[in-house]
Amino acid sequence: MTAPALSALSALLGDRFSTARPVCAAHAQSETHIRTGLPDAVVFPETSAEVAAILRICAAHRLPVIGWGAGTSLEGHALPLHGGVSVDFVRMNRVLSVSPEDMLVRVQPGITREDLNRELRATGLFFPVDPGANASLGGMAATRASGTTAVRYGTMRDAVLGLEVALADGRLIRTGTAAPKSSAGYDLTALFVGSEGTLGLITELTLRLHGQPEAVSAAVCAFASMGAAVDCVIETIQSGLPMARIEFLDPAAVAACNAHAQQNLPLAPHLLVEFHGSPAGVAEQAARFGEIAESHDCTGFRWAEKPEERSALWRMRHAAYPACLASRPGATAIVTDVCVPISKLAEAVEETRADIAESGIPGPILGHVGDGNFHAILLIDSESRAEAATAKALASRMAERALRLGGTVSGEHGIGMGKLAYMQAEHGDAWAVMGTLKHALDPDNILNPGKLVPPHDAG
Amino acid sequence: MTAPALSALSALLGDRFSTARPVCAAHAQSETHIRTGLPDAVVFPETSAEVAAILRICAAHRLPVIGWGAGTSLEGHALPLHGGVSVDFVRMNRVLSVSPEDMLVRVQPGITREDLNRELRATGLFFPVDPGANASLGGMAATRASGTTAVRYGTMRDAVLGLEVALADGRLIRTGTAAPKSSAGYDLTALFVGSEGTLGLITELTLRLHGQPEAVSAAVCAFASMGAAVDCVIETIQSGLPMARIEFLDPAAVAACNAHAQQNLPLAPHLLVEFHGSPAGVAEQAARFGEIAESHDCTGFRWAEKPEERSALWRMRHAAYPACLASRPGATAIVTDVCVPISKLAEAVEETRADIAESGIPGPILGHVGDGNFHAILLIDSESRAEAATAKALASRMAERALRLGGTVSGEHGIGMGKLAYMQAEHGDAWAVMGTLKHALDPDNILNPGKLVPPHDAG
Ligand SMILES: Cc1cc2nc3c(=O)[nH]c(=O)nc-3n(C[C@H](O)[C@H](O)[C@H](O)COP(=O)(O)OP(=O)(O)OC[C@H]3O[C@@H](n4cnc5c(N)ncnc54)[C@H](O)[C@@H]3O)c2cc1C
Ligand SMILES: Cc1cc2nc3c(=O)[nH]c(=O)nc-3n(C[C@H](O)[C@H](O)[C@H](O)COP(=O)(O)OP(=O)(O)OC[C@H]3O[C@@H](n4cnc5c(N)ncnc54)[C@H](O)[C@@H]3O)c2cc1C
Repeated sequence: MTAPALSALSALLGDRFSTARPVCAAHAQSETHIRTGLPDAVVFPETSAEVAAILRICAAHRLPVIGWGAGTSLEGHALPLHGGVSVDFVRMNRVLSVSPEDMLVRVQPGITREDLNRELRATGLFFPVDPGANASLGGMAATRASGTTAVRYGTMRDAVLGLEVALADGRLIRTGTAAPKSSAGYDLTALFVGSEGTLGLITELTLRLHGQPEAVSAAVCAFASMGAAVDCVIETIQSGLPMARIEFLDPAAVAACNAHAQQNLPLAPHLLVEFHGSPAGVAEQAARFGEIAESHDCTGFRWAEKPEERSALWRMRHAAYPACLASRPGATAIVTDVCVPISKLAEAVEETRADIAESGIPGPILGHVGDGNFHAILLIDSESRAEAATAKALASRMAERALRLGGTVSGEHGIGMGKLAYMQAEHGDAWAVMGTLKHALDPDNILNPGKLVPPHDAG
Repeated sequence: MTAPALSALSALLGDRFSTARPVCAAHAQSETHIRTGLPDAVVFPETSAEVAAILRICAAHRLPVIGWGAGTSLEGHALPLHGGVSVDFVRMNRVLSVSPEDMLVRVQPGITREDLNRELRATGLFFPVDPGANASLGGMAATRASGTTAVRYGTMRDAVLGLEVALADGRLIRTGTAAPKSSAGYDLTALFVGSEGTLGLITELTLRLHGQPEAVSAAVCAFASMGAAVDCVIETIQSGLPMARIEFLDPAAVAACNAHAQQNLPLAPHLLVEFHGSPAGVAEQAARFGEIAESHDCTGFRWAEKPEERSALWRMRHAAYPACLASRPGATAIVTDVCVPISKLAEAVEETRADIAESGIPGPILGHVGDGNFHAILLIDSESRAEAATAKALASRMAERALRLGGTVSGEHGIGMGKLAYMQAEHGDAWAVMGTLKHALDPDNILNPGKLVPPHDAG
């Protein structure tokens, strides 16, 4: 079925269709240790109608279709498990319209977060979801991404107001409206957000924007113990302080960041925080946070009030992943992503710390702790099967721990291939329900097959 | 198929099963003009397991099953179109657990909003979604309800973190976790919220709570024109002021409220607003709102700072619906519920006002204008078919207007039977997709048949 499909695609797209090996190989790569075969072809659509036409061709020939945004996902989401066509959205990267009065923007899925914010700069508005990596908005919606600012502005679940989606049979539908809320029927927007390209390809997004804060202030502070830092987070969140960011770095993560970003932070657990608001509001928030941090014996409290200092701080934070990788030359990483209720955060982080220490594998911990979300970056020798096995066992104990504490195996990265093994444990029969929905919308299983839902015949 | 199903249900539930005519009739009543036949029986389960068992019996005999919360929905949602069993959740009304540290509560679906907040009072937390009516939490989730506080705290979409749901085949599933966010698979929670009992019966909810605000302040003010009031709302929202409530009443609604609640507001367009926060924060917000209102020539600005004054204000607002009804003795109401992008609010309200004026039917307008959501309460003589037809034509022009302006036909009340006719226009092919999902989860169409989705064979 592959050859006729490929010639139909080639006829449709001309030089925006490729079977060249380097192009295919580039669409079988990921930041992680996960590997698959290559796609049979890569296509570069420019319009929604083309995406729909691609799907009609693939449906007719039952050829797998895998969306490709910026390829930064961490669980092999965008890799082809069964060949097929990689649909790269890089040429669908336009801002379609901005409505400053409604604080909305309509974009094509291939635009990146940084490009979007560059285009918005003059409007006084910004798009807050910030996964660090310069991901595409389509990919971020598909993985229900979040990041450092979710504690204040929410995740892609909150940020996406509506979508245009091309379904497995090539129908183009619109979900949601431009009104701030609706009770008119099933929340299809929320169903497609986080569906990892298994239910449809997103061809357009309507996103909620926020006013650029009048005043911003950021700070970094150290704590005597992990427990003290985490308790400070818990108290801050419970106090209702509208933190814009509240990030945790353990001593190992601090060491890696110091080396990579030429910083000189003490090797202790740290919090990095940011406040947004009116000048008076920010001052009030900062003072209240300062008191809470003080009461947990924080030390080395340092403000970053100037924009340059602040960007240096967040550049360091955003580079924490490469910094960790660089801290063990030649290593690859297994990145975990658990998220627990805030009251269980100290327990989760401390048990994880002890478990990693015992394993002998380096595993800096950092996270968006205002949401109860943290990552251990398990750094393994790429050649050592023993280390890989140890790291996987650690990751799976982290997942079990998160579930035991009422949490989830993925706070923001998603399932892809890497976390499939935990879905039954997290969802029970609800996982089969996901399979039923997938089967209803994609009966021939052409959309990103092998990801997220149970194997098709078991659905 | 009905008789054997009913005897099985009777055997299961004993005196919590009833076919008594008054009981059945009470479950075929609604606040509105919509009428149907009676259910064949009413059941009063006490546990999730009983709900699952009820569904297994009904599935085996293909008997319709309709959830019943407090019966306050406004589009005939809970009325039986094809007989069957009304599942009344009144005996499943317990708070199961409160987690103050995580600001979460687990409840059974039958608890009402007021009872829940009474039980939470001592914790310093509250549940913010406030549809005015003392609805059940299960019904509120099922209709994706919101109300006066949504502008600040969001709707049921935001408030529900997880659910337990009994499916059409009697399986009980859990959706979501207690962690603040998750990327682990399809967002089933969001799919069931707003599904109006057509995909499953909600047997438990995990809800997000908020800290009771330290300081609260409310105010009422009048404007020379509807346009000025609405422009004031738009500017307020765009300024990023975190309004806790911002409600609009047109002169006809004010007149009705004056008469019903012994108030003496001038017969002009009014805004009712509320601020929540720290004492300093509330003062700052109130001052900024005052300036904006001033710049739109507001008059009669009056603060309600004392708790008694504030509750009198919101009691008046919450009684606006009965007040409107009482303003035309013997009338019934057709309640509209459009929601538009905030930039289109003035246009939508003014065109609607003119259209109603021309029709000769009394139709006070009020709404949660911070969300772009407003209602016209079209008061018709219950005996007059001509007035009913005029009102329906008005309502349908309002719906078309909302869609033309990029909005939705239902901001918060939902579809039920009353708004089915607009679903194709609002959703296009996405409505068929809703039908596909319904069919996948409820192939025999036993769950609230005839509501929300396209007719089953057309699905
Ligand atoms: C250093 C680093 C830090 C990171 N930090 C964070 C973080 O803090 N928070 C966070 O959430 N993530 C983080 N990530 C993960 C990653 O950035 C996110 O998962 C991101 O959302 C992926 O977007 P992408 O455009 O790269 O998608 P891709 O990797 O290209 O694709 C991801 C998935 O989306 C699907 N997809 C892509 N486009 C579409 C479309 N138009 N329609 C339908 N499906 C589509 C793909 O098929 C695939 O299943 C990080 C990654 C790196 C490398
Ligand atoms: C005076 C007045 C003012 C109102 N103002 C507002 C407002 O401001 N905002 C707003 O949103 N609404 C408002 N409403 C409408 C109404 O209060 C809401 O629709 C409310 O959510 C209905 O809840 P209920 O418990 O009464 O549900 P019901 O009317 O009993 O049922 C509503 C729907 O939910 C289903 N259902 C009930 N329980 C369950 C369950 N456990 N599992 C699955 N399905 C279930 C029913 O089958 C039905 O389809 C108002 C109503 C009145 C009378």
